[in-house]
Order: sequence, then C-alpha cells, then structure tokens
Amino acid sequence: MAITSLNELFVHTLRDIYYAENHLTKVVPELIETAWNSDLKTLFREHLDETRGHIGRLEQVFALLGEKPAGEKCAAIEGITAETRELIGQISDKTTRDAALIAAAQAVEHYEITRYGTLVAWAKALDHEEIQDLLRATLAEEKAADSKLLRLGEDKLNEKAA
Amino acid sequence: MAITSLNELFVHTLRDIYYAENHLTKVVPELIETAWNSDLKTLFREHLDETRGHIGRLEQVFALLGEKPAGEKCAAIEGITAETRELIGQISDKTTRDAALIAAAQAVEHYEITRYGTLVAWAKALDHEEIQDLLRATLAEEKAADSKLLRLGEDKLNEKAA
Repeated sequence: MAITSLNELFVHTLRDIYYAENHLTKVVPELIETAWNSDLKTLFREHLDETRGHIGRLEQVFALLGEKPAGEKCAAIEGITAETRELIGQISDKTTRDAALIAAAQAVEHYEITRYGTLVAWAKALDHEEIQDLLRATLAEEKAADSKLLRLGEDKLNEKAA
Repeated sequence: MAITSLNELFVHTLRDIYYAENHLTKVVPELIETAWNSDLKTLFREHLDETRGHIGRLEQVFALLGEKPAGEKCAAIEGITAETRELIGQISDKTTRDAALIAAAQAVEHYEITRYGTLVAWAKALDHEEIQDLLRATLAEEKAADSKLLRLGEDKLNEKAA
C-alpha cells in the first residue's frame, strides 16, 4: 500500500507498534515463566499489565483519528523476539539466563522507546495534541521499564552471573 | 552452541553486535542514497564513518579477550532493516520518506544503544575495565547520533512533511 503523506506514515507506524504490543502480550508470559529471580519475574509481570494499558491507549489514538485499531506485521519486533527465544534456549545456567532475559527485555523496551518517540514527534508536527499526550504517557512508562531492568541487572543479577 | 557463563554470553553478544555493525556498513549507503534532504545525507555519511570506527573498537575488544573477531547472525537488526526497506519502497513523497528514514535510523540506533548498554554493564560485572571504556565510547556515539536524528526531524524535516 502506497504511503503519500506524514499522516499516512503516522497511521502505518501506529499499526506497527499496535502489532508489536499485541505480540508482546504473548511473549512476556514466556519471559515470566523463564525468569528465575523473583524480582525479575515481578518486573515482567508489571510490564505485562502496562503493555495491556499501552494497547488501550493505542485504541484511544485510533478512535481519535477515526481509524479502526489494526496491526501491521512488524518484522523488527519479530526479529528481536526470535533472537531472544533462540538465545534463551542455549543457556542452561539460571543466573546467566536471567542476565540474557534482562538484555532481551531492554532490547524490546528500546524498540518501543524509539517507535513511541517518533510517534510523539510526528503527532506534534501534525498538531494532534491529545494523541501526543497519550503517546507521551506510554513513552514515559517504556523508559521507566528500561531503567528498572538496567538497575536490577546492575544492582543484583549481573554480579550473581559473573 | 550452549552458553554456560556470563563471559560466554558476553562474547556471544559481542558477535551479535559485530554482525549488526558490519550489516550496517551495507545498509547505511542505501540510506544515504535514498535521503533527499542534504543534512540527512550528511548525518548518514558521518554515521557510516562512525560505524567503521565501532567495528575497529569491537576488534580491539575481541583482541583483549583473546578471541578472533567473528559475527553471529543477528535476527533483530535484519528485522529492523527489512522493515525499513519495505517501508521506504512504499513511500514516493520525498519529505515523507525522509521522515521515515529518520525513524528507521533511530530504530537502528536504539538497537545499538541497548546492546552496547548491556555490554558495558556486563564488562563492569566481569571486571574488564579497558573493554568497558571502549564500549562506553561507542555507546556515547550511538546516543549522540540518535539525538542528532531526533533534532533534525523536530527542527526541520517533520514540519516539511506535515
């Protein structure tokens, strides 16, 4: 499908991240299951709840644009999660696997941070004020999740693995 | 290949990003070619030079570890670049395409930011001080490249596209 304006690119990218968020509601339960450390399990559980909230916000954004919520297959998030599954399958040691799970989850967060960052910038250029606020709220949660993962690794899990 | 320690996971992840950086030396010239705005072309050119420098630093890291530099196929970066190529092919309008190119390049930067961020944290846990400094230098350049792309979009290109 040809894209001929920033507005169409904006909707396309919303569909990309909507697909990614929905994909994550299937992947994050695997991370919860695989994690050994209980703090890490808790972080993943919290993030699964947040992911459902992000899907709800995206549905509000689609409604504000008069568009039906729809996903568009996102090769990037599929690449990131395929890589994660393959890697995790190669690691038997549980502290090493937790370190890998943190890295994998941070890669997911960064994908979301970059997509929401772009969407906020485009919403601004397109004068979609209310949409900008919704996307900005999710962006803040993705950044906070990334920081929590980093801190958990640095404060606790990496030392155990090393 | 089974991974049984954080040190092995560290080497595996170095190979992943080494593959990604080498992959980018092939993809970034396509971005330079496709970009319409001259500032964007310049940013991509600068980043291609930096990418070569990052490969050099990774080779120093491999040498310090007594490992041969080697890449390991990285599904994440391939997913990100596949998505970029597909999207760019759908956009005929040049200002909209520039906005998409910025978003694509920021997705690449964020993948690198998360990988180098993880590697710095692990190098610290593994007491590889010199390696940590090398990786930290690249991490700073990836973050700076991401900020420059964001600013170019916000200050100039998004408005043109909108």
